[in-house]
Amino acid sequence: MQTRHKIGILGATGVIGQRFIQLLEGHPWFEIVWLAASDKSSGRSYGEAVRWKLETPLPSRIAAMTVSPAAPEDAPVVIFAALDTDIAHELEPKFAAAGCAVISNSSAFRMQADVPLVIPEVNPEHLNLIETQSWRKQSGGYIVTNPNCSAIGLVLALKPLADRFGLESVFVSTMQAVSGAGYPGVASLDILGNVVPYIRGEEEKLEAETLKLLGKLAGTKVEALNARVSAHCNRVAVEDGHTESVSIKLTAKATRGEILAAWSEFAPLAGYALPMAPLQPVEFSAADDRPQPRLDRMRGKGMAATVGRLRPCGLLDWKFTVLSHNTIRGGAGAALLNGEFLAAAGKLLPPAGVPGVPGGDRDRVAVSA
Amino acid sequence: MQTRHKIGILGATGVIGQRFIQLLEGHPWFEIVWLAASDKSSGRSYGEAVRWKLETPLPSRIAAMTVSPAAPEDAPVVIFAALDTDIAHELEPKFAAAGCAVISNSSAFRMQADVPLVIPEVNPEHLNLIETQSWRKQSGGYIVTNPNCSAIGLVLALKPLADRFGLESVFVSTMQAVSGAGYPGVASLDILGNVVPYIRGEEEKLEAETLKLLGKLAGTKVEALNARVSAHCNRVAVEDGHTESVSIKLTAKATRGEILAAWSEFAPLAGYALPMAPLQPVEFSAADDRPQPRLDRMRGKGMAATVGRLRPCGLLDWKFTVLSHNTIRGGAGAALLNGEFLAAAGKLLPPAGVPGVPGGDRDRVAVSA
Amino acid sequence: MQTRHKIGILGATGVIGQRFIQLLEGHPWFEIVWLAASDKSSGRSYGEAVRWKLETPLPSRIAAMTVSPAAPEDAPVVIFAALDTDIAHELEPKFAAAGCAVISNSSAFRMQADVPLVIPEVNPEHLNLIETQSWRKQSGGYIVTNPNCSAIGLVLALKPLADRFGLESVFVSTMQAVSGAGYPGVASLDILGNVVPYIRGEEEKLEAETLKLLGKLAGTKVEALNARVSAHCNRVAVEDGHTESVSIKLTAKATRGEILAAWSEFAPLAGYALPMAPLQPVEFSAADDRPQPRLDRMRGKGMAATVGRLRPCGLLDWKFTVLSHNTIRGGAGAALLNGEFLAAAGKLLPPAGVPGVPGGDRDRVAVSA
Amino acid sequence: MQTRHKIGILGATGVIGQRFIQLLEGHPWFEIVWLAASDKSSGRSYGEAVRWKLETPLPSRIAAMTVSPAAPEDAPVVIFAALDTDIAHELEPKFAAAGCAVISNSSAFRMQADVPLVIPEVNPEHLNLIETQSWRKQSGGYIVTNPNCSAIGLVLALKPLADRFGLESVFVSTMQAVSGAGYPGVASLDILGNVVPYIRGEEEKLEAETLKLLGKLAGTKVEALNARVSAHCNRVAVEDGHTESVSIKLTAKATRGEILAAWSEFAPLAGYALPMAPLQPVEFSAADDRPQPRLDRMRGKGMAATVGRLRPCGLLDWKFTVLSHNTIRGGAGAALLNGEFLAAAGKLLPPAGVPGVPGGDRDRVAVSA
Repeated sequence: MQTRHKIGILGATGVIGQRFIQLLEGHPWFEIVWLAASDKSSGRSYGEAVRWKLETPLPSRIAAMTVSPAAPEDAPVVIFAALDTDIAHELEPKFAAAGCAVISNSSAFRMQADVPLVIPEVNPEHLNLIETQSWRKQSGGYIVTNPNCSAIGLVLALKPLADRFGLESVFVSTMQAVSGAGYPGVASLDILGNVVPYIRGEEEKLEAETLKLLGKLAGTKVEALNARVSAHCNRVAVEDGHTESVSIKLTAKATRGEILAAWSEFAPLAGYALPMAPLQPVEFSAADDRPQPRLDRMRGKGMAATVGRLRPCGLLDWKFTVLSHNTIRGGAGAALLNGEFLAAAGKLLPPAGVPGVPGGDRDRVAVSA
Repeated sequence: MQTRHKIGILGATGVIGQRFIQLLEGHPWFEIVWLAASDKSSGRSYGEAVRWKLETPLPSRIAAMTVSPAAPEDAPVVIFAALDTDIAHELEPKFAAAGCAVISNSSAFRMQADVPLVIPEVNPEHLNLIETQSWRKQSGGYIVTNPNCSAIGLVLALKPLADRFGLESVFVSTMQAVSGAGYPGVASLDILGNVVPYIRGEEEKLEAETLKLLGKLAGTKVEALNARVSAHCNRVAVEDGHTESVSIKLTAKATRGEILAAWSEFAPLAGYALPMAPLQPVEFSAADDRPQPRLDRMRGKGMAATVGRLRPCGLLDWKFTVLSHNTIRGGAGAALLNGEFLAAAGKLLPPAGVPGVPGGDRDRVAVSA
Repeated sequence: MQTRHKIGILGATGVIGQRFIQLLEGHPWFEIVWLAASDKSSGRSYGEAVRWKLETPLPSRIAAMTVSPAAPEDAPVVIFAALDTDIAHELEPKFAAAGCAVISNSSAFRMQADVPLVIPEVNPEHLNLIETQSWRKQSGGYIVTNPNCSAIGLVLALKPLADRFGLESVFVSTMQAVSGAGYPGVASLDILGNVVPYIRGEEEKLEAETLKLLGKLAGTKVEALNARVSAHCNRVAVEDGHTESVSIKLTAKATRGEILAAWSEFAPLAGYALPMAPLQPVEFSAADDRPQPRLDRMRGKGMAATVGRLRPCGLLDWKFTVLSHNTIRGGAGAALLNGEFLAAAGKLLPPAGVPGVPGGDRDRVAVSA
Repeated sequence: MQTRHKIGILGATGVIGQRFIQLLEGHPWFEIVWLAASDKSSGRSYGEAVRWKLETPLPSRIAAMTVSPAAPEDAPVVIFAALDTDIAHELEPKFAAAGCAVISNSSAFRMQADVPLVIPEVNPEHLNLIETQSWRKQSGGYIVTNPNCSAIGLVLALKPLADRFGLESVFVSTMQAVSGAGYPGVASLDILGNVVPYIRGEEEKLEAETLKLLGKLAGTKVEALNARVSAHCNRVAVEDGHTESVSIKLTAKATRGEILAAWSEFAPLAGYALPMAPLQPVEFSAADDRPQPRLDRMRGKGMAATVGRLRPCGLLDWKFTVLSHNTIRGGAGAALLNGEFLAAAGKLLPPAGVPGVPGGDRDRVAVSA
C-alpha cells in the first residue's frame, strides 16, 4: 500500500503556484490538501481566485478548494512555497517555527548560512544544514530552498565539469523568459520586438547562488566554490525557457569528448526513482542551432537542462549554450524535486525527539493514496 | 552651387538595398541613378520588383526606375553594394575592374589584406589600402567594405576605450534582430517565442572583424589588434537592433568616470560635417534598463551606438550593454558613411594618372543638385 | 507674426500623454507650458516622473519641467487630456467649469448628449454642441472629445462611403495593438504567441461611437446614424496600429471604382492647412496583403487611415481592411487635430459675452511664437 | 489480440508530416512503416532529412527509418498525405489508382464532386462518396480529405447549431497561426509586431468548404448547405491555434441557453471510441476573455474546438469566438480521425469484389500490435 504526503502550497495563485498544481496533478507521493494566497484570495474558491495561465486545464478538484489564509494554523506539515521575496521573508519563518517543512522557491533565505540551497543532483548533502536551524530544533520545522531560475540550468551543466576537471571561471549571458517575472510581470510594451538588458538583482543572485551550489559542506557550513562568475542578465520575448551563453575555464584540460562524456554520464539520482527526476539531467543536443527554448524546454518533462554548441572559447577554455525551463526545472519542479528527495531521505516527518509539535493533529502523517 | 554624385545600388531589392534607398532619399551628396538586382528583377520597374518592407513609403521616383542587370556596363562610378556573399565574390571585382568605387556591405572581401574594412569614426586611415588594390591601379576602381552588423556597434563602443586605456580581452554575447538575416530570412516558426543560439559564420566574423577594425595600418597592411575576443551570437524576436552583452579587460585601469568620459568625448568626425555621421557616435544611457532595441535603435537617426549598464565585471574589468541599428549603422548607413567619407576625401573620382577609364562617358562626374 | 497657444496636458506621463509631448515638439500653433499627472508624480521633474516609452527622445525642455497637480488653478486655458475614464469623469468637468477648453481623449463624456465627439474630417459641425454646455455659458470652458482608437480608422473609411452611397450595416472585427491598453497594460504572458478575444467595453464603444460620429447635428442634438454595427474586438501582439476586417452594406449600389474614388477624393480639410491634418485622410493600398500595422501605421505621419483588400462580400456588399495608428490618429493626434480645428475656428478663446472668467490672468491669450 | 494497420506518410518532413509522426507515436490502431518525401530527402534517414520543429522529441525508431521516394510501388495501403497542393494534384491520384486509401490533408481534391470532405463528427455519411470514385472501382483505392485548418473549428461550432436551429448566414474573421503556412512559411519580418490581412486562397476555401461540410449527401452527390458565408482571413504572430470571430444568423430563434446546450450535448462519436476523438468536440469556456490560442489550443489533446464569448450580434443573431489547433485538429489530427473512422467502418481494406489489387502483397492486411 502506497501512501501520499498531504501538502500545502503557499502563494498558490501565482505563476509558480500554478505550476505546482499542474505538476502535482496525479503525483504519486504528494496530495494537495491546502492552498493559501493573499488576503484578497482567501476564502474564495481557488477557481475564482486564480487567473489560470497554463495550457493544461485547472483540475476541477483544485478549482473547488477554498483558498486558506496564509497562516500556519491549519496548514499541513509539508509546504511548497512560491511567495514574493518580501512576503517570504515574513511568512516562511512562521511556518518553519510552527513545525512545517517549508520547501521554498523564494530567494528570501537562499543565501542564509543555515538554509540549504539545493539541487538534488548537485549538492544533496547540503540538506544536512536543516539540522542546524533553530526551527528544526524547536518544532521540527525547517526551510529548504532551490536556486533562482537562471542559476539552475547553468549549475546542472557546470556540476559534472566541476567535479571532473575543476572549475575556475564562468562567464554567462542570459536570455530569460517573461514567465520568470510572474504575472502580470513584464509589460507587453516592454518586450514585444524588444530586449530588456536588466533584471533587478538577478545577476547578483546568479553569481552568488552558483558558487554556493557548487560549494562544499564543511561541518555545519557551506564553503562556496572558489571560482569567479560574471553574469549578464537579459529579458527576451520568450514565454518559458531561459537560454544562456556560457564560457568556462577549467582547472584541468578537458577535450570535447571528455566534456560530452561528463555530461552524458551525469546521473547522480539514478538510484532514487524520484518521480520528478529526469533520467538524464543534462542532455546534449548535437544540432548546430540548439538548444532553443521553444523546442527543448520540455525535455525530461521540463526537468532536464539541454546543452549544445560546445566549442572552444577564444578567451577561456570552452563555450556552450544551456537551456532549462524556468518555471518547471527553475521553479515549481525544483522545489518538488527537493521535496521528493527529502521524502526519500525520511526528512518530511519531524525528527526523533521532537515531541508534540504544534499541528500534530492536522494530518501531518502520510495518508494512503 | 552644390553637386551630387550619381550613384548606383547593387542588390537594390533586398533588406539592405531598401535601406539604401530610404536613407538616400533627399541625400545632399548622392543621387540614385541606377538600381541593379538579380535576373528575375532586371527589366522590371523597381516598384514591381521589390517587396518593400520599410515603414516609410517607397519614393515614387524610385518605384518608377527600371531595374538594371547586375553588370558594370551602364553603371555609374559610385556603387553601393548589398549583395549576398557568394554573389559579391563574383560581381564586386567586376565592378572594381571596370573602374567603379564599390562601397560594399558584403562580407566577401572584408578580411582580404588589401581591402579596407572601415568605420570612419574608428579607422579611416585604413582607406589608404585602396591604393594597393590592383583594380585601382588599372581602372581607378576599388572595393571598400564596412563591418558585419554585429561588429559595428561593439567596435564603436570599444574604440574610445582601446585608444585611452588599451584593450586586452572582450567577451561579447549578442541578441541579434531578424532583419540581419535578410528577407525572407528567419522563418517565423523559428523565432516566435524563441531564441536561436546560432548564426552561421557570425561569431567568426565578429571576432576577426573587431580585431582588424581596431588594428593599425602599418605601411600597406593592417596589423590586427593584439587582443582576444570571444563571441556568442544569438538570434532573438526583434525586428531591428542588435543588443550585445559585453565584458572587457583593459590594459590600464580605468574608473567608471573615465570610461564615461571616453565615450562622451568620442567625436572623431566632428570636423567633417558628413550627412550620415551622428553628432555623438556613442551615446550613454544612464537608466538601469537601457539600451533597448525598440527604444534606442534610432538614436542619431539610427547611426549612434547606445551603451548602458556600465558596471564592474567579476571576471574581466568592466561590463556593459551596447546596442546599434543593424540595417542602418550596421548596414546601409555604414556604407553610406564610408561613401561620404570617401567623397570628403576626394576619393570618389579616379586617381590622378588613370586616364580613359572605362565608363568615363557615363556620368561619373558629379552633377548639380 | 505668428502666435502660439499655451497649452497643458492632463495625464502627461501615460502612453497618450507621451504621444502628446512627442507630437507637440515643434508644433507651430501650440506650446506646452503645463504638465499634470497623478499625485505620485506631482512636484517631480517630468523626466523623473515618466517612464518614456517612445522611440524618439524625450525633449530636454520637457524633461526639466515640474509636474503640476491635476487641478485647474494654475492650468492654462487649453488642456489636452489623456486621463483614465474614472479620473476623467471627476477631473474634466472641474477644468471645464474653471474656463478651460478641455480637449479630451477619454471615453468619459463621449456619449453625453451635449459633448461633441468629433473627427474634424468627419463631423466638425458637431463642435457646435459646446455652445450648449453649461460650463461654456458660465465660464467659457467646455469639453470636446475624440473617439476610441478602434473607431477612428473605421469611421474615416466609412464616412466618404456613407456620404455618397448611404450606409446601412457594418460588420467589424478588430486586431488591436497593445499600446491601446496603456502602460503597463497588457501583460506579456497574455499576448506573446497569443490573441485575447476581449477588450472590456470596447465593442460597445466602437458600435455606439461610430453611429454618433456619422450622425447629424439636428438643432442642438446629434441624431445617430440609423444603421447597424456589430463589432468583435481582439487584442494581438502588435505594438502600435489597429487592423480591422470590415464588411459593409450600402444603401445605393456602388462599384469598386466608385468606392475607390470616394476614398481618394475625400479631403474635407483641404482648405484649412491644419498642421496635424494628413493630405489624404484615407489612403488606399493596392497590394494584396496590405494594410499591415508595421508597414502602414505611419502613413500621413500616423494620421492617415489605410484601406486595402477591397472585394465583394458574400453577406453584405463589400469587404475591406482598414488600419490606423492607435496612439497617434486614434489618440493624441486625434485630440491635437481637434485642438487645431478649434483654433482655426476661433474657439480656443472664451466666447463673446463671457467676462472675467476665472483664470483670465493666467496666460490664456495666445503668445507670440 | 489487437491488430494495427501499417500506414505510410506522404510529405513526412513538413509541418503536418511531423504532426502525423508525433500523434501516431503509440497509436493503438496505426503503425508507421513507410515515410516518403521529396527527392532531396529520399534515401536519407528521416532523422537527417527532417528539420524537426515540435516540442516533443523525434522518436528514435522513426529517425532511423529511410525516407522512401514518393511513389506507390512500395507503399502500404493506408496513406496519410500532407503534400503541397500542386504535388498532391499529381501524386494522390497515383496512389489511389494503385489501390491505396489516401487520407489527405491537402486542398487539391477537397471540392471535387466525388471526393469526400469530411469531419467525422459533422458529416461522416459523406464518406460514401468514395464508392463513386473510379479508383475505388478499379483498384480499391480512394481519396478522402479533411478541411482547411481555418474551416474545421468553425464547422465544429456551427454543426450543432445548424442541426437544431438552421443556419442562414455566417460572418467569420480569422486570426491564423503561422504554422498554418508550413515551414519556412511566413517570414519573421512579416509577422513580428504585425498582422498580415491576407492568406492566398484561404477565404475562398473557408467559405466553400464550410458549405460543403454542412451539406447533405443526396444520392451520390453532396448538396452544399444553402447559406451565406463571408470570410476575412488574417495572419497573426501566433505559433499554433486559429482564433475566429464569428457572427451567425439562425433560421429559428435560439436562446443563449439553447445554444450552449447544443454545443455541450454535441457528441456524435460517443459510440465509437476512436482514439483521436475528443470526448467533447466543442468545449465552451465561460471566461470573458477566452478562448485564447496559447491557453486553449490543447483542449481535448488538440482535437477540441473551444468556443466562448457568446453574445447577441447587432447585425445577425449571435456572435462568438472559436478556436482550434490548426496543425492537430486542423491538420494531422483531422486526417487521423478520418483514418480511424474509416477503420472503424471497415473501409481501410479493399471493398468486396475487388480482387488482386496491385500491392496486395505489401502488407495491406492488418498486423498484430
